[in-house]
Amino acid sequence: MQPPEPLDLWTSPAFEPTVRNGNLFGRGTADDKGQVHIHLKAFESLQKANGKLPINVKVLIEGEEEVGSVSLWDFVQKNKEKLKADALLVSDTSMLGKGVPSITYGLRGLNYYQIELTGPERDLHSGVYGGAVPNTLTIFAELFAKLHDKDFRVTVPGFYDQVAKVSNAERKALNALPWKKKDFEKAVGAPGYFGEKGFTTVERLWIRPTFELNGIWGGYQGEGAKTVIPSKAYAKFSTRLVPNQNPQKIAKLVEKHIRKLLPKAVHCKFEVLSMGKPWVAPCHAPIFQKAQAALEKGFGKKAVFIREGGSIPFVTQMHDTFSVPCVLLGFGLPDENAHAPDEHIALENYFGGIKAVAHFYADLATL
Amino acid sequence: MQPPEPLDLWTSPAFEPTVRNGNLFGRGTADDKGQVHIHLKAFESLQKANGKLPINVKVLIEGEEEVGSVSLWDFVQKNKEKLKADALLVSDTSMLGKGVPSITYGLRGLNYYQIELTGPERDLHSGVYGGAVPNTLTIFAELFAKLHDKDFRVTVPGFYDQVAKVSNAERKALNALPWKKKDFEKAVGAPGYFGEKGFTTVERLWIRPTFELNGIWGGYQGEGAKTVIPSKAYAKFSTRLVPNQNPQKIAKLVEKHIRKLLPKAVHCKFEVLSMGKPWVAPCHAPIFQKAQAALEKGFGKKAVFIREGGSIPFVTQMHDTFSVPCVLLGFGLPDENAHAPDEHIALENYFGGIKAVAHFYADLATL
Repeated sequence: MQPPEPLDLWTSPAFEPTVRNGNLFGRGTADDKGQVHIHLKAFESLQKANGKLPINVKVLIEGEEEVGSVSLWDFVQKNKEKLKADALLVSDTSMLGKGVPSITYGLRGLNYYQIELTGPERDLHSGVYGGAVPNTLTIFAELFAKLHDKDFRVTVPGFYDQVAKVSNAERKALNALPWKKKDFEKAVGAPGYFGEKGFTTVERLWIRPTFELNGIWGGYQGEGAKTVIPSKAYAKFSTRLVPNQNPQKIAKLVEKHIRKLLPKAVHCKFEVLSMGKPWVAPCHAPIFQKAQAALEKGFGKKAVFIREGGSIPFVTQMHDTFSVPCVLLGFGLPDENAHAPDEHIALENYFGGIKAVAHFYADLATL
Repeated sequence: MQPPEPLDLWTSPAFEPTVRNGNLFGRGTADDKGQVHIHLKAFESLQKANGKLPINVKVLIEGEEEVGSVSLWDFVQKNKEKLKADALLVSDTSMLGKGVPSITYGLRGLNYYQIELTGPERDLHSGVYGGAVPNTLTIFAELFAKLHDKDFRVTVPGFYDQVAKVSNAERKALNALPWKKKDFEKAVGAPGYFGEKGFTTVERLWIRPTFELNGIWGGYQGEGAKTVIPSKAYAKFSTRLVPNQNPQKIAKLVEKHIRKLLPKAVHCKFEVLSMGKPWVAPCHAPIFQKAQAALEKGFGKKAVFIREGGSIPFVTQMHDTFSVPCVLLGFGLPDENAHAPDEHIALENYFGGIKAVAHFYADLATL
């Protein structure tokens, strides 16, 4: 859960759950206390109806996700025996849209990097020195401009070598989802759009790897003019990865390429801040069919199979550790202000979620 | 004068003038109270020796230079009659090096710009949106990478059209000055150097125009990783100008080129924060010969004619307003920590300066 600030932008207090217009408002309602609560309520319903749960369930509530999950992985490693199960069910994803119950079967991996360039030993006066010394910001510009080609493909040699081919059938299914490019663009509100040539927007978001700048800073950032040539410049950037890209291998390729592109006029400190694998599930397996049927019972509508562009390292780690199917059922909507003021969850998804999850647990007993 | 902070880096208090190793330490000793004091002491000496000054002198002490000279220009405009003179003498430049009395006869002009790019309406999650939306930092990189060609010439069409040709004789003289590239590079301390092809370091610094990034910021700049695609990115940059580039014309060309290079996927707010003309003096005119002779009397060494890469808008404005020769005699050294802790002036230059300036005033009476 994120902190509630800025508090003055909340219509009702962040920690007083309030219902307005069919939504429950409050910090964590969509991400992710609300989704945890759906499961607890499903257990309660099953218990009340049958006096016991239909299957043996082990509940792990992760309360540190937004602060780096510092305890989680250690806990899992130390309690492997206790946590052993036949499948993993996670509720931390979104529905594709209002009225579209969704099962997420793919996530992108994430490598996050930071580099620090050093040119001159100290900041220099751009009048006295300009024209004859390396400018770290100019060198950043030239570096990062070279990391995409004219088709907006990442130029790191080998970057795409391990990318698993996505079948035409799957691409067709993804592009046929009830997802409107126009709605997406309206929500983003940019004056224009572009991405890797040869792929649709949905494909660019879900099944293609990216190289993305997340932050750059260097030189003077205050009011007015300061004629400085910055000694240092910093950049944070990330690569989103898709099956079967290997994070360690990609990190090495990225560092090698960047060091090759940089001129000798600067030093570069290169750090990999984190690495995370991509994940994709065999969504035709029986447990996914059970999930689809359960969602239909809960929402009265056929559920769709979607992928997401984001990363949930926990899913990949659990999948790798326990070698069990992972089912991602999410009940939040993309526009429910997760991480922002007036976070909320639609009550129809909250109640539909409880019903669907209860059915899923019950149906799993028959598998 | 700059503020004294950080105070703890001063060996002796910033506002208690202290002599150590032949230098006078204190804020403003080199830039520019010390140089003002040289003139006052020269007047005092002439007064003591002759009972009066050899010529009529009008003294203008500019105390607001480091905070934008907010009152200066208005004062000059309102007191044109009172300020009328046959020549302007300014002491705010540097000597080429220790033991090299110098007359500065050229300055670069300066245009300073700021742009703000806006892509998506708000910051976006790079997992959810990465690959299909414009990233303002990536667009900055691609923009600024295009502003220099492979020879590190500025690519703005027309940028060099008005650049006055510098004669081979002048280039030869500048390159023959007692100025060592090795010392320059040691002082800067960068791992390598580059600049516009076809010009020496001194030429790149003094007689060639530049395009220089002074600051860039956007996205996440804190500790660790935040996977954001920044809605906005900002850049500050400047063009140093040489005779006869016209600042207004250059500003228009730069804006036009940048707008042309930017993709439609972003909005750009373009601001010109300041404009300033380059300046060069006919250093063979009689008054410059008098200045050279006076410096030789003060320092016991032949003075050299140099240009500087920086800008002193006041000089250009005064030159344009009064159409009189401007003589720039500076007594600071480049490594005397102007704008930094432990600022100092070499006493030999302080006393040499007083002697030289007194001789100059006396000699001017004979012109």
